[in-house]
Amino acid sequence: MDDKIKIGLIGFGCVGQGFYDIVKAESLPFEIRSICVKSRDKQRSISADHFTYQYQDIISDAEIEVVVELIDDSEAAFKMVKQGLIAGKKVVTANKKMVAEHLEELMALKENGGKLWYEAAVCGGIPIVKTMDQFYNHEPIQEISGIFNGSSNYILSRIESDGLDYQQALKKAQELGFAESNPLLDVGGYDTMNKLVILLCHAYGITTTPSSLSTVGIQNISTQELEFAQKRNLKIKLVATAIRNHDQVHAFVMPSFVERTHDLSQVNDEFNAVLVRGKYTDDHLFTGKGAGGAPTAASVIADIYATVGKPDYDYYKWHDERDLAYSNELVLPIYLRYNHPDELSEFGFEHIWRHQQNENGNYVLGKISLDNLWSLNAFIEERGLIAVSASLLQQPQKLFDKKAQEKLVV
Amino acid sequence: MDDKIKIGLIGFGCVGQGFYDIVKAESLPFEIRSICVKSRDKQRSISADHFTYQYQDIISDAEIEVVVELIDDSEAAFKMVKQGLIAGKKVVTANKKMVAEHLEELMALKENGGKLWYEAAVCGGIPIVKTMDQFYNHEPIQEISGIFNGSSNYILSRIESDGLDYQQALKKAQELGFAESNPLLDVGGYDTMNKLVILLCHAYGITTTPSSLSTVGIQNISTQELEFAQKRNLKIKLVATAIRNHDQVHAFVMPSFVERTHDLSQVNDEFNAVLVRGKYTDDHLFTGKGAGGAPTAASVIADIYATVGKPDYDYYKWHDERDLAYSNELVLPIYLRYNHPDELSEFGFEHIWRHQQNENGNYVLGKISLDNLWSLNAFIEERGLIAVSASLLQQPQKLFDKKAQEKLVV
Repeated sequence: MDDKIKIGLIGFGCVGQGFYDIVKAESLPFEIRSICVKSRDKQRSISADHFTYQYQDIISDAEIEVVVELIDDSEAAFKMVKQGLIAGKKVVTANKKMVAEHLEELMALKENGGKLWYEAAVCGGIPIVKTMDQFYNHEPIQEISGIFNGSSNYILSRIESDGLDYQQALKKAQELGFAESNPLLDVGGYDTMNKLVILLCHAYGITTTPSSLSTVGIQNISTQELEFAQKRNLKIKLVATAIRNHDQVHAFVMPSFVERTHDLSQVNDEFNAVLVRGKYTDDHLFTGKGAGGAPTAASVIADIYATVGKPDYDYYKWHDERDLAYSNELVLPIYLRYNHPDELSEFGFEHIWRHQQNENGNYVLGKISLDNLWSLNAFIEERGLIAVSASLLQQPQKLFDKKAQEKLVV
Repeated sequence: MDDKIKIGLIGFGCVGQGFYDIVKAESLPFEIRSICVKSRDKQRSISADHFTYQYQDIISDAEIEVVVELIDDSEAAFKMVKQGLIAGKKVVTANKKMVAEHLEELMALKENGGKLWYEAAVCGGIPIVKTMDQFYNHEPIQEISGIFNGSSNYILSRIESDGLDYQQALKKAQELGFAESNPLLDVGGYDTMNKLVILLCHAYGITTTPSSLSTVGIQNISTQELEFAQKRNLKIKLVATAIRNHDQVHAFVMPSFVERTHDLSQVNDEFNAVLVRGKYTDDHLFTGKGAGGAPTAASVIADIYATVGKPDYDYYKWHDERDLAYSNELVLPIYLRYNHPDELSEFGFEHIWRHQQNENGNYVLGKISLDNLWSLNAFIEERGLIAVSASLLQQPQKLFDKKAQEKLVV
């Protein structure tokens, strides 16, 4: 009897190894026919005859039904996935950057029977892509807000709970393997934005690219804004936000003030969370570990069964409900910490409620358009500035109202 | 053009009306051809010519593809759903009691092309049935614990936050429409158990009936155990639990002590939550409103699209992984408050750590088999006793250890 699903695995890192281990441990009806890796010399836990070094060996193997792509390099992954789809393979990937940057093109490559599934790309083990696609497919989504990056959340949790500064917390995260040696993809908000872009397609039918949307990271965070938040009993979280406003959808990734009663304030350490506000469903919160070999591999396994036995993702809102348009025409209440007065003039605040400029530090509390903020993303990053959104607060004006503020400040 | 999905709706209460309203408001491609209701005389928001009073009119209408069953009476619903499936209809229901009591029989009635979907039956708008069936279908589930009944959780929240006693809190819940005039289905734990039984099938491949499993409600809760919990900084929640232990699965519904750091302790008011602990996925928490017209109707709508466009539920673990058996052979740490000493002798505690019997009240802290507890469910209910599980506590022995306890008691 040979009704096993024949799989070609590309990549044997943390998730690839996790996937391989589960397949073995649970005696799943999968046959991993071939594993493609880059380096011939790396020490690996299984013998060398499992491996190939040419991904074309997997694509051209007519016996292989499902290609599981689990490598880091998003451009190389794109080439492989593209060829797999053109060859009519069912492709399962965890590569968020690749999917976010090329989703529309990939969706068009399925005429030969190829299918593409990527649950593991968004918040690791949390089943949010499938749920967005298959459950919320006809629900008008008002808002998505979430914590999509475990490394950043771990760092912010350590700062908040253990009183570390950003550099100390980053070091601790790196020691524990929660952050890469080059952590900018995580702490710069790019990983979070990639995931948000994928959800925008399933939640609103909008395909866009990560670089078109405003992304501010936590890497420039300083004690000044941490103390500002602490005095007001707020936390700072790196939050992905998508908001629907009539027929427009706005989205951004940004450090955000969060009240302690807000659902996202309870999501700490390496945990992820997605808060979905539907017009009829009301608020749903999904939390879980957003990364790690086993949780992510569990999503890969669910995808393999789905791609073999079921139709493709619906993409219902993308195919049939193209009534929403993406726009950066949103005015956001933010806190901006700057270093030199000439930096401030770049920002074009629409309104300034409060402006502190003294030996305790410089900051502005005001309203700014998302479009402006987007055009200043690189400037913020390079100059070591930080912008923190107040849009999640129930009464953001309390941050700005001098009287209310004086009461709050200790 | 007439590619609308033709629907026969049975029931026009809170959820039925909510469903009807969404279909109208969102211009969904549904045609509600006929609505079956029981009473001819009731005042309704739409004109009488929409209605029929014979459900057979709907079953025998060859044009109707999907039957949406949203009535309260579970036995009447069973008859209708059964006939619908035999007639090859796709049936969507929110009737948890009906599904829980008859799932195995209903699963066998699909040879004529009938399909049965029931997302709305478990925690209203929270998409847990589909997710359990389609995402966790190959994940070994270690444990499920959850708050599945909004009325009971609302009552317990009012007791805890507002210092009401049980009767006052119940009255408030009834005034707000969160509890039925006969609230026993909710507060007695039966509604919670119905939902747990449905999940047992998808999570573990086990079909059983609600009456075979131990169900203790909150209706006999008194200030004695509320103070006991408060002194130890614990909350009491009505919790559904399923635990896997090698090839056995145990399940019970019971008031449970919960530490304030536990995810379920944050779930208050009418909210529901499901905590799923997978071997590989680790802990996932899903929270949202578990009831109400619009959230529940949103699940009905998702089911209609699913039943029309997709294969049936997988029931993978039920069909292919029949390696687990249900068993009540579990020893549970519990708190039991009793009134008279002769009641205690009925329980057959396996071990008693602490026994208080004085003017401050009578209780036992000890270990009891789930099987014993199950056989005493009716006795507990009738005699006004209450049992509270300590199985969710990280260190249940702390409740029992005299030294640790003395420190805890103020």
